Amino acid sequence: MVHKKVTLIGKSSDSFDAAVDDAVDRALDTLENVHWIEVEELGVELATVENREYQAEVEVAFELE
Amino acid sequence: MVHKKVTLIGKSSDSFDAAVDDAVDRALDTLENVHWIEVEELGVELATVENREYQAEVEVAFELE
Amino acid sequence: MVHKKVTLIGKSSDSFDAAVDDAVDRALDTLENVHWIEVEELGVELATVENREYQAEVEVAFELE
Amino acid sequence: MVHKKVTLIGKSSDSFDAAVDDAVDRALDTLENVHWIEVEELGVELATVENREYQAEVEVAFELE
Amino acid sequence: MVHKKVTLIGKSSDSFDAAVDDAVDRALDTLENVHWIEVEELGVELATVENREYQAEVEVAFELE
Amino acid sequence: MVHKKVTLIGKSSDSFDAAVDDAVDRALDTLENVHWIEVEELGVELATVENREYQAEVEVAFELE
Amino acid sequence: MVHKKVTLIGKSSDSFDAAVDDAVDRALDTLENVHWIEVEELGVELATVENREYQAEVEVAFELE
Amino acid sequence: MVHKKVTLIGKSSDSFDAAVDDAVDRALDTLENVHWIEVEELGVELATVENREYQAEVEVAFELE
Amino acid sequence: MVHKKVTLIGKSSDSFDAAVDDAVDRALDTLENVHWIEVEELGVELATVENREYQAEVEVAFELE
Amino acid sequence: MVHKKVTLIGKSSDSFDAAVDDAVDRALDTLENVHWIEVEELGVELATVENREYQAEVEVAFELE
Amino acid sequence: MVHKKVTLIGKSSDSFDAAVDDAVDRALDTLENVHWIEVEELGVELATVENREYQAEVEVAFELE
Amino acid sequence: MVHKKVTLIGKSSDSFDAAVDDAVDRALDTLENVHWIEVEELGVELATVENREYQAEVEVAFELE
Repeated sequence: MVHKKVTLIGKSSDSFDAAVDDAVDRALDTLENVHWIEVEELGVELATVENREYQAEVEVAFELE
Repeated sequence: MVHKKVTLIGKSSDSFDAAVDDAVDRALDTLENVHWIEVEELGVELATVENREYQAEVEVAFELE
Repeated sequence: MVHKKVTLIGKSSDSFDAAVDDAVDRALDTLENVHWIEVEELGVELATVENREYQAEVEVAFELE
Repeated sequence: MVHKKVTLIGKSSDSFDAAVDDAVDRALDTLENVHWIEVEELGVELATVENREYQAEVEVAFELE
Repeated sequence: MVHKKVTLIGKSSDSFDAAVDDAVDRALDTLENVHWIEVEELGVELATVENREYQAEVEVAFELE
Repeated sequence: MVHKKVTLIGKSSDSFDAAVDDAVDRALDTLENVHWIEVEELGVELATVENREYQAEVEVAFELE
Repeated sequence: MVHKKVTLIGKSSDSFDAAVDDAVDRALDTLENVHWIEVEELGVELATVENREYQAEVEVAFELE
Repeated sequence: MVHKKVTLIGKSSDSFDAAVDDAVDRALDTLENVHWIEVEELGVELATVENREYQAEVEVAFELE
Repeated sequence: MVHKKVTLIGKSSDSFDAAVDDAVDRALDTLENVHWIEVEELGVELATVENREYQAEVEVAFELE
Repeated sequence: MVHKKVTLIGKSSDSFDAAVDDAVDRALDTLENVHWIEVEELGVELATVENREYQAEVEVAFELE
Repeated sequence: MVHKKVTLIGKSSDSFDAAVDDAVDRALDTLENVHWIEVEELGVELATVENREYQAEVEVAFELE
Repeated sequence: MVHKKVTLIGKSSDSFDAAVDDAVDRALDTLENVHWIEVEELGVELATVENREYQAEVEVAFELE
């Protein structure tokens, strides 16, 4: 029942919540038994004045089989 | 006019904003003169793939009578 | 192509996303070539029980001419 | 002989020492067996140019009965 | 289902594990629904060369009713 | 001779030492050339008053082939 | 109503309080609407054994027009 | 004799030393009385496998007139 | 377009720049779409007085396919 | 009655408690008036799969004569 | 011209400034070429309600001969 | 086999690598069994625009006899 943590960075053009969900979705696609995530950093990248990309770096904890 | 700070963890199935509001609502129910809160940690617990609980640990500062 | 970082605090009566956008909007009004921002702190000020002001302290990085 | 720690914010219009003493005085009024305090943060609030309020956030450790 | 965190310092003349258990025991005596604790600091006080007191500062999270 | 670090969380119903050993054992089962680990966090989860699970989050450094 | 923070280092041959006031005085001379400051670091420089210069690094928050 | 600190990010295709010097050069071009800098972060951006840009975020302290 | 971060420790008998490059080289050999790295720690191991091994712990961010 | 702090790293093949005691024992052998120690870091070095060395970095505070 | 840093804890029944001076005085008694000190921690110990001992942990930097 | 750590600040007019080496050289002159060093801080002091002194604060770990 050892857990492992990996660090992912999710993105969204809408909101920080959606950026976190983006990382969680990716984790759920490739990992089994994801139990919790912790938000490490929030930021915004601006390619142009109109274009804001919300980003969230998260640690994902899942149970190793 | 001394202030005191306590640490609460609010939750929501919708968003981090709602998780912070959950902790603020609880503070306002039981404490008088709440002046500000600081967000300490954000996280998500996943009971199942469908079920994401957004959590916010906050410090609540209120004025002691 | 040296970058500079400045620290701004945005506010909103609605949400943390809007508070971050408030600081980004201000940066875009007065600075050219804003490339990214990092969220440093999130908090809420309560003037009254009804009145919650969401605040976001961010570092804004822009390219010096 | 378990100890507990609580966080208080003392204030003074004179000095940081007086702001720390303000928090310690409050702790001694309401708690028995206060053994030590640790200074967490120092700051100043300025309502007007003339009016500086020195503030000290401290952790107060006391022995539980 | 809001949680609250309080900071306790447990002690033992035997080991750090026993110092943590000391704080957990105290929490369980006075609080309902204690769910987890986090170790913040470990230290040793030496009254004499023979006498070592192991100490553990922990944060205790419990569910508010 | 580049090293890589991964983050594991070991558990034990007995002690923090055993929780660390749990994570080290898992690392040794699946990785070659594990050289050192660093303890990042210690905590306890309480399912019931009787049932304490000691947990240790560790970083494991191993040599890449 | 966006705020900006700048970092100043005040000095005094007398005390830390005076070193903080030195930085606040400077901020008030050149900035409008200074609302609060946070102490970041305290130190002492010794040019000679007799000559101690108390220094305070502070963050000054003021409202942008 | 109050000092101010600003945050710059220098860059170089050669080395971290050159990235720090890049930020220092910029500071000396536009500021008088630069006294010291502190390195805050070092990183590398890779546009392509061949193209490594060394970056250094530094705090620059200079004396206000 | 989710990114992942992994932690590597590069080494060199010459310099810190070369130790960072060692880790970057390894990342580029085994990962596609490496976009940036952040330096976490720098150190030196001394097997003998003559023999200094420069080490750099870095976080490598790459785009998941 | 000024105190001084020094940093020691104790070791044990058995446990973290024994590693801390190893450092405390050394301090007591060479220093008078040791009053308390703070644990800074815990780690394990693995020379072989069988051979685990528990290590504890501690700060030792003692009274200068 | 290498510098060394040592950690001292000064005390005073009057103020934090005096506690820092206490540590600086001790350093000047036993070390040559003390150039600067940095304040690491401030605290108060209370033996009795009347008796407050202000304490300052400082790092002292001096030039090695 | 207890280790001790001391903090040194090395300097160079050329580079950060040379500043670290300066501190390591000093350690090797006066201490036996130096095993590793950790870089704590990097900075530059500017006496004049032409004159840049690279500085490195390092912790040096050596085995006590």
